[in-house]
Amino acid sequence: MTGYAVIGFLTDYGTEDGFVGTCHAVMAGLAPNARVIDVTHQVPPGDVRRGASVLADSAPWFPPSVLLAVVDPGVGTARRAIAVDAGPCVLVGPDNGLLSRTWEALGGVGRAVALAPHAGGRHGPSATFHGRDVFAPAAARLATGTDLHALGPRIDPASLVTLPPAVVRVLPGRVETEVLTVDRFGNLQLAAGPDDLRAAFGDEPPRALLLASGDVTRPVRRGRAFADVAPGEPVLLTDSAGRLAVAVNQGSAATALGLAPGDAVRLSQR
Amino acid sequence: MTGYAVIGFLTDYGTEDGFVGTCHAVMAGLAPNARVIDVTHQVPPGDVRRGASVLADSAPWFPPSVLLAVVDPGVGTARRAIAVDAGPCVLVGPDNGLLSRTWEALGGVGRAVALAPHAGGRHGPSATFHGRDVFAPAAARLATGTDLHALGPRIDPASLVTLPPAVVRVLPGRVETEVLTVDRFGNLQLAAGPDDLRAAFGDEPPRALLLASGDVTRPVRRGRAFADVAPGEPVLLTDSAGRLAVAVNQGSAATALGLAPGDAVRLSQR
Amino acid sequence: MTGYAVIGFLTDYGTEDGFVGTCHAVMAGLAPNARVIDVTHQVPPGDVRRGASVLADSAPWFPPSVLLAVVDPGVGTARRAIAVDAGPCVLVGPDNGLLSRTWEALGGVGRAVALAPHAGGRHGPSATFHGRDVFAPAAARLATGTDLHALGPRIDPASLVTLPPAVVRVLPGRVETEVLTVDRFGNLQLAAGPDDLRAAFGDEPPRALLLASGDVTRPVRRGRAFADVAPGEPVLLTDSAGRLAVAVNQGSAATALGLAPGDAVRLSQR
Repeated sequence: MTGYAVIGFLTDYGTEDGFVGTCHAVMAGLAPNARVIDVTHQVPPGDVRRGASVLADSAPWFPPSVLLAVVDPGVGTARRAIAVDAGPCVLVGPDNGLLSRTWEALGGVGRAVALAPHAGGRHGPSATFHGRDVFAPAAARLATGTDLHALGPRIDPASLVTLPPAVVRVLPGRVETEVLTVDRFGNLQLAAGPDDLRAAFGDEPPRALLLASGDVTRPVRRGRAFADVAPGEPVLLTDSAGRLAVAVNQGSAATALGLAPGDAVRLSQR
Repeated sequence: MTGYAVIGFLTDYGTEDGFVGTCHAVMAGLAPNARVIDVTHQVPPGDVRRGASVLADSAPWFPPSVLLAVVDPGVGTARRAIAVDAGPCVLVGPDNGLLSRTWEALGGVGRAVALAPHAGGRHGPSATFHGRDVFAPAAARLATGTDLHALGPRIDPASLVTLPPAVVRVLPGRVETEVLTVDRFGNLQLAAGPDDLRAAFGDEPPRALLLASGDVTRPVRRGRAFADVAPGEPVLLTDSAGRLAVAVNQGSAATALGLAPGDAVRLSQR
Repeated sequence: MTGYAVIGFLTDYGTEDGFVGTCHAVMAGLAPNARVIDVTHQVPPGDVRRGASVLADSAPWFPPSVLLAVVDPGVGTARRAIAVDAGPCVLVGPDNGLLSRTWEALGGVGRAVALAPHAGGRHGPSATFHGRDVFAPAAARLATGTDLHALGPRIDPASLVTLPPAVVRVLPGRVETEVLTVDRFGNLQLAAGPDDLRAAFGDEPPRALLLASGDVTRPVRRGRAFADVAPGEPVLLTDSAGRLAVAVNQGSAATALGLAPGDAVRLSQR
């Protein structure tokens, strides 16, 4: 069989309205055998960067899939709707950078098309709910084996909107980076990874480091697991997405350190 | 095959307890091949009108389905449990008006039955969790092809509880209506639709209108998409359910205008 | 076919990140035909007792299933990862007591194994996300028919961590117990059941009782359904899990009575 057995689905729709269920219903009608997996629908309204981070961290764990993402403050304007091949997956969503971290995580963009307005829906699309009227139908059709090129005209991958790269600067004995995202537990995911730490400090980075943000500098220990430090203490570890993260054992690093996505941080030697 | 491949599911159970999962489990046991789609489980506890609105907006997008809804402050009392044919779907839930907006949206009620207390469950029902003990088993049996009449005695559709119609009054140059519901983004869905606007103002309603509620009157522009007005400005558009809605571009109309479901509003010419 | 058609899934991961979706993706890759049912992912972070209660109340309603639960404050430490046979189900999760109420509800533990670190994952496990790297792969392999013993060395069921039993003390004319859990509606589930009430008060316990907690004593009526008392009044009933519960008709007993999980309460005759 061609097509995809799984559709991953991420939005900022929340779950208190019927928006997510309506998109599921549309996909169930068009692709009755596809399994739809919700990544999250709790992206803060319009927060494209947050949606991009969450999708990119989950995407590599999907079997070959359609990945459908809708965080779309420009719905109804001239922004393009796109579908792009990326590694074993095909990505569907608005062309506003939301998908860009994911195609980077999956090895880059292959073919890309702009979705025709009537690519999937039975009527013309509404001006406010392209998740239901454009994106979900396109994702369902890809799942059932429709070729990418049947959904709209080919576009130049170089023309796609991408998010600006996150700050990662490696100096001798110092890494300057930013908080990329914060999870439910208050863990602070940094843009830098363990390779950056080794580039700055050598193959055996010190176990005791300093974490600075603005005027505030705090000691932080390197560890492997949350429980490698005492309860309430901060620990710098490699998180499950392969990035550096600051956590507090049995606590919230975001609360304890007062840091949020986008904040600049520096790691240096004690 | 008779029966239905999809069960849509809406409740006020929330997702912090195991109530929703337990109903899914019951349905998986009785209808292993049915696909259950969650519409929402975040209806505020006991808010029958809100549940009725959300279900009615989603229902038309389902393929032929069983639609199971439980917002049931009268659980354990003499209120009836019902199943009714409505267009391509069959609806299951308490007879308290929750399903009435949906059968209106789907073209009216066909056959109707009162669910027998033991219509589906393996034991007699509990007094507090008919979702698990009465409604989910009935929905699962309908999905697997059990005829409606096997679930309980036929009842007169005219005897079903319906919600009072929402206020929509069309006068020359004026529409009086009410806020029907508010979504996650703070968009205010009105009971009136674009046809009412044309009935009041002619085929080309003015682009600049006044929106009044109580003593407060504000200008509002008509548009097609959120982005047709500047960020922070209110716009009157046709929403994805085909009703008039007041939105604020990149903001919350509910917060900006201080309006909530049930509030009376008037649209008039500037 | 051997194996299990359904995987029940409970965590404290929340739904705002991609953790739950990532585990679903891993399971979809390894067990494409298994249906995954979310019990809840809103267990408060690290609250093993709450997770244990919710899972135990839902488990008996599942068809023969794999039940996968992850509330795991000790992730990355030496705590064991386990899989155990329990009645018609097999349970997978950390060995911290989370599963113990469920195997009690399902009739006790049969065979038990410690999951080998590489029991399922394609790589070695991360130190922070065993849901994705250890538990979900093990659950998926069990669903597809892998025998329990293929997942790791057999361990003595007597060595498994169990939660301390909840307080239930029956005296003549008095039941001393504790609040086990509180649901979304504010209903207070007690550890005691209707049998304990009969043991204390005889086959026809009085309809008017006293509920005491600390220095405060309040009258409470016995009933069958929420609506057996006036709105705003407390009622003692048998809840859908078969335990005693204190509810307030159309209100929250937790708020009205100021009680929370773990609080000691006494039921006595008026």
